[in-house]
Amino acid sequence: MANKYIDINTLKYQLFDIHNIKDLLKYERFSDHSEESIDMYINAVKEFSDRELFPFIKEMDETPAYYKNGEVFVHKQVGEFMRKSGEMGLISAIFDYEFEGMQLPITAHNAATFIQDAANNHLPGYAGLTLGSTELITHFGSKELKDTYVPNMLAGKWQGTMCLTEPQAGSSLSDITTKATPTNTGFYKISGQKIFISGGDYQYVENIIHLVLARVAGAPKGTKGISLFVVPKKRINSDGTFTNNDVQTVADFQKMGQRGYCTTHLGFGDTDDCHGYLVGEENKGLKYMFLLMNNARIGVGRGAVAIAMAAYQASLEYAQERPQGRKLSNAGKKDPNEEQCFIIEHPDVRRMLLLQKSIVEGGLSLVLLTSKYQDIVSATSDKEEKEKYNLLLELLTPIAKTYPSEAGIVSVNNAVQILGGYGFCTDFIVQQYLRDIRIFALYEGTTGIQSLDLLGRKTTMQNGKAIELLAVEIMKTIKNASKFEELTLYATNLGGSLQSVQKVINHLMTFAKKGQFEKFLADANLFMELLSHVVISWQWLEMASHSIDAINKKENSYSIDFHYSKIETMKFYFKYELPKIKSLAESILNDDLVTIKTEKTLLF
Amino acid sequence: MANKYIDINTLKYQLFDIHNIKDLLKYERFSDHSEESIDMYINAVKEFSDRELFPFIKEMDETPAYYKNGEVFVHKQVGEFMRKSGEMGLISAIFDYEFEGMQLPITAHNAATFIQDAANNHLPGYAGLTLGSTELITHFGSKELKDTYVPNMLAGKWQGTMCLTEPQAGSSLSDITTKATPTNTGFYKISGQKIFISGGDYQYVENIIHLVLARVAGAPKGTKGISLFVVPKKRINSDGTFTNNDVQTVADFQKMGQRGYCTTHLGFGDTDDCHGYLVGEENKGLKYMFLLMNNARIGVGRGAVAIAMAAYQASLEYAQERPQGRKLSNAGKKDPNEEQCFIIEHPDVRRMLLLQKSIVEGGLSLVLLTSKYQDIVSATSDKEEKEKYNLLLELLTPIAKTYPSEAGIVSVNNAVQILGGYGFCTDFIVQQYLRDIRIFALYEGTTGIQSLDLLGRKTTMQNGKAIELLAVEIMKTIKNASKFEELTLYATNLGGSLQSVQKVINHLMTFAKKGQFEKFLADANLFMELLSHVVISWQWLEMASHSIDAINKKENSYSIDFHYSKIETMKFYFKYELPKIKSLAESILNDDLVTIKTEKTLLF
Repeated sequence: MANKYIDINTLKYQLFDIHNIKDLLKYERFSDHSEESIDMYINAVKEFSDRELFPFIKEMDETPAYYKNGEVFVHKQVGEFMRKSGEMGLISAIFDYEFEGMQLPITAHNAATFIQDAANNHLPGYAGLTLGSTELITHFGSKELKDTYVPNMLAGKWQGTMCLTEPQAGSSLSDITTKATPTNTGFYKISGQKIFISGGDYQYVENIIHLVLARVAGAPKGTKGISLFVVPKKRINSDGTFTNNDVQTVADFQKMGQRGYCTTHLGFGDTDDCHGYLVGEENKGLKYMFLLMNNARIGVGRGAVAIAMAAYQASLEYAQERPQGRKLSNAGKKDPNEEQCFIIEHPDVRRMLLLQKSIVEGGLSLVLLTSKYQDIVSATSDKEEKEKYNLLLELLTPIAKTYPSEAGIVSVNNAVQILGGYGFCTDFIVQQYLRDIRIFALYEGTTGIQSLDLLGRKTTMQNGKAIELLAVEIMKTIKNASKFEELTLYATNLGGSLQSVQKVINHLMTFAKKGQFEKFLADANLFMELLSHVVISWQWLEMASHSIDAINKKENSYSIDFHYSKIETMKFYFKYELPKIKSLAESILNDDLVTIKTEKTLLF
Repeated sequence: MANKYIDINTLKYQLFDIHNIKDLLKYERFSDHSEESIDMYINAVKEFSDRELFPFIKEMDETPAYYKNGEVFVHKQVGEFMRKSGEMGLISAIFDYEFEGMQLPITAHNAATFIQDAANNHLPGYAGLTLGSTELITHFGSKELKDTYVPNMLAGKWQGTMCLTEPQAGSSLSDITTKATPTNTGFYKISGQKIFISGGDYQYVENIIHLVLARVAGAPKGTKGISLFVVPKKRINSDGTFTNNDVQTVADFQKMGQRGYCTTHLGFGDTDDCHGYLVGEENKGLKYMFLLMNNARIGVGRGAVAIAMAAYQASLEYAQERPQGRKLSNAGKKDPNEEQCFIIEHPDVRRMLLLQKSIVEGGLSLVLLTSKYQDIVSATSDKEEKEKYNLLLELLTPIAKTYPSEAGIVSVNNAVQILGGYGFCTDFIVQQYLRDIRIFALYEGTTGIQSLDLLGRKTTMQNGKAIELLAVEIMKTIKNASKFEELTLYATNLGGSLQSVQKVINHLMTFAKKGQFEKFLADANLFMELLSHVVISWQWLEMASHSIDAINKKENSYSIDFHYSKIETMKFYFKYELPKIKSLAESILNDDLVTIKTEKTLLF
């Protein structure tokens, strides 16, 4: 088992130095916080993760959640984790003071949760879903709903879930059929089936509060006829006791990874006695859900990049300790009399390590950047500032969800490769990370859905305003980097990549303008990959600029070696990853439309 | 569970039409065979795979091989499989008549074994290892060794294994320390530890025959001091009874995939009573092993591409049956009143299917091509022909091993993505394929090792003669394709890619000539990827040319739709995969040598 799952220095460097969390503290909402208090919070979560999360990751994989006689049973650490998360205020941290929250910036919360994700990705989802479902209630629910549910959810006593997916409606939420029938007594009767419900049932919480998307009879078809309901597993009587609310656990899903994080199939209203309580207004359910979706999607990116961080640390540790083979001498021979070297000396192993490092830290930087945008949007009272950062947030969220999830698989796959045959064996943790991370490209909208969102919706909104704003931000980094002689080449390179992005967008827009939407969107996935590489290169140039500056100024918060490692990893990304945009652009600009079905493109 | 694991038409099309197995039948060695007899053999193996392999794949994953009290226990179908493989002559098929073989071309054998690999990749390895270890005996062993071991091994009664890896020596075989001490009575005493021994111990065969690499005391250090021994689990007494030969099963390895294919840790000579019988001469063990390594490596590629084939079929079936979402109308809207379409209609799903198809069939074609080269080399008496095909075989073998293993992971990963959340669940087979295929990039020399072999050894041998020969072969395909108007563009494109290969090689050779071997080889992995794309594009252009010709000539062995699907998949590969060589070339030509360790490139 690896000993280290995170490089905490890198996290703090990004949080405090690169993304300057102190910028946020000027806003009224966050004014009670300081860099010191946030640092203490991070340290407390690290200590909590060392003690309560990391030691259980292997065990939770090996003794997965299971279903028996209508109930789901999970590892006992889930109970401990929820109880302690509640006690420590981890679930409530970002909430308003009125809900006993700390009004902690989401940026700090995501940095802290990143540590937990890296320590044991089977656990933080239980708290994260509770947080997300509670947010729906605090933002859109009535006072009664808030009073009844919020305190126990934020205390970790009641689990919260999100019930969107149905068997016949996966990515296509407009096709959900779960019914909500109004009654005269304030509640709705709910009936239907929901699948893939994470944290949907287990033995260690008093109650489970489902946030359920359903259709009220007579509602418009499609996405405009979907309403949101609070549906507790057990109804809360006026005296505080519970009554079963006709929510059945039909089955669970056994999975290739995240086996300790239970996934359930729920049936609502089998005996016509399932009460649901409307959140906000009828038919606005999907809108509410999507108002909070950015945070959920950034959270998925955060989880994926955290697993990749842990796998990177495990493979780095292995590469530093495993002797194997010899370095090539200048004669091109290996001398068997020489001692074996550690495999970290081999260029190909270094390549696999640097690839991971560049993906992990580049992805983390994007997660923290979008988190910061969220904080600004929620905290600022300046309308222009709010609009600017909201547009940037909307544009970058699908990337912050997708890049870590997709590149994260590649990253962890390289960790496995570094361990050789051992990487495939269950005695080593990296194979578990490879299994665990696979779900992230499916959670909260698959890569295909995110790519359609990015190209079809976000790139076009306000006539391309968001892309323009992004280009302005990137140009700032380029300008700053150009001040350092060692970086001018890279700055120029990134500038050129912006032109490629523009060229590709111009090409695609010709289809959109002609109403050829299938052609416009057919290669959305490639566009996602292309723009991701530009955005991650931008993050790396920003980090390298900061590190060169720190070396020049002899700042000593971090070692010179630490800073050099950032600069070298930037160079790695610009050499090995950024060039991929050329072939991606070539593919997108190619007019062979082989993925659009014609009579000739049958598949066998 | 998916119903179909292979497209048998495509396999036959490649075997008989693309790779013209009848070309081989002119050689004396294969002269008793005909296209009809080979077709019957293929059909028999398909029927065997339907009945004895495919039905057990899920069960073998769910009830993995395990170790208990010094023994390994595997699924009972392993016993059935070995017994029937022996009875049907599947293990002995490629052997000479003197060993009761059929002198079947390896090309036909690999086509047939491909079916088995696709049906259930946990089983064919047991037979494959027995075949390979028997080959070592028939090629290099004494008459006594042949008489004693070969008949029962080829009959599937005795399992064969290859014992190379040791705990301290993974990829670095020069560091093995297992000892062989000569005695006066013809045998050697063996002592040492071997790990990752597939099929190393189980309850369903009478005996297990280990082919063991070891060092005779006083042998030179490094690879030139390694000898090869036959070490049976049980010694065979003159009356046919057995005596235990002091081979201990120390442990097994539990793995993320191929869980039904046991992997063992063996100890030899714990009580100083382990007899080993020298194969051939002392100190030539590694040479013998490597003389048969091409076949083993091509077999790894075959297995990987077979798993990817099965995953492709499973995801194709799902995509054809799963309704989800709607096609975009020309107004860019989706109409919720419309019925949902099948997901195979969505361009991004088609992209993921075509990507799989292009990898699977392109990879299969390379496996069969290299198999054919093997057959020519072994069967021809023409020295020039032998040398030519041997050079091509040496050059292409590392690619035939690596491309299917690496691109195969990507391929199966896309199969999982097509199934959405279900793809992650154990109720569906694709997640198992994703776990199973992960080992292939590690088997028989990792991707890093193969890439060093390709660039460092194969590209440079005889001053680049093999690359020249490859270029000639590719030019033939280009010339032929240029006759078809629809293909001229693609033919030109492939020609351009050959120039890129040459440019990259010229650049790298400047380092080799200066004796800068680390720089020469640092990006061998990228060179592997680059050359793979060119080689697979070549295979696709060949297939597309054949299919256009068949359409033009109104040949009716396969449907017109079948042929169009080949042409369209070629176009897909040229649009989405071949362009990757541009960015790969850019990375290789970039002089930022960040993967070679300097004082600045420390890793954290």
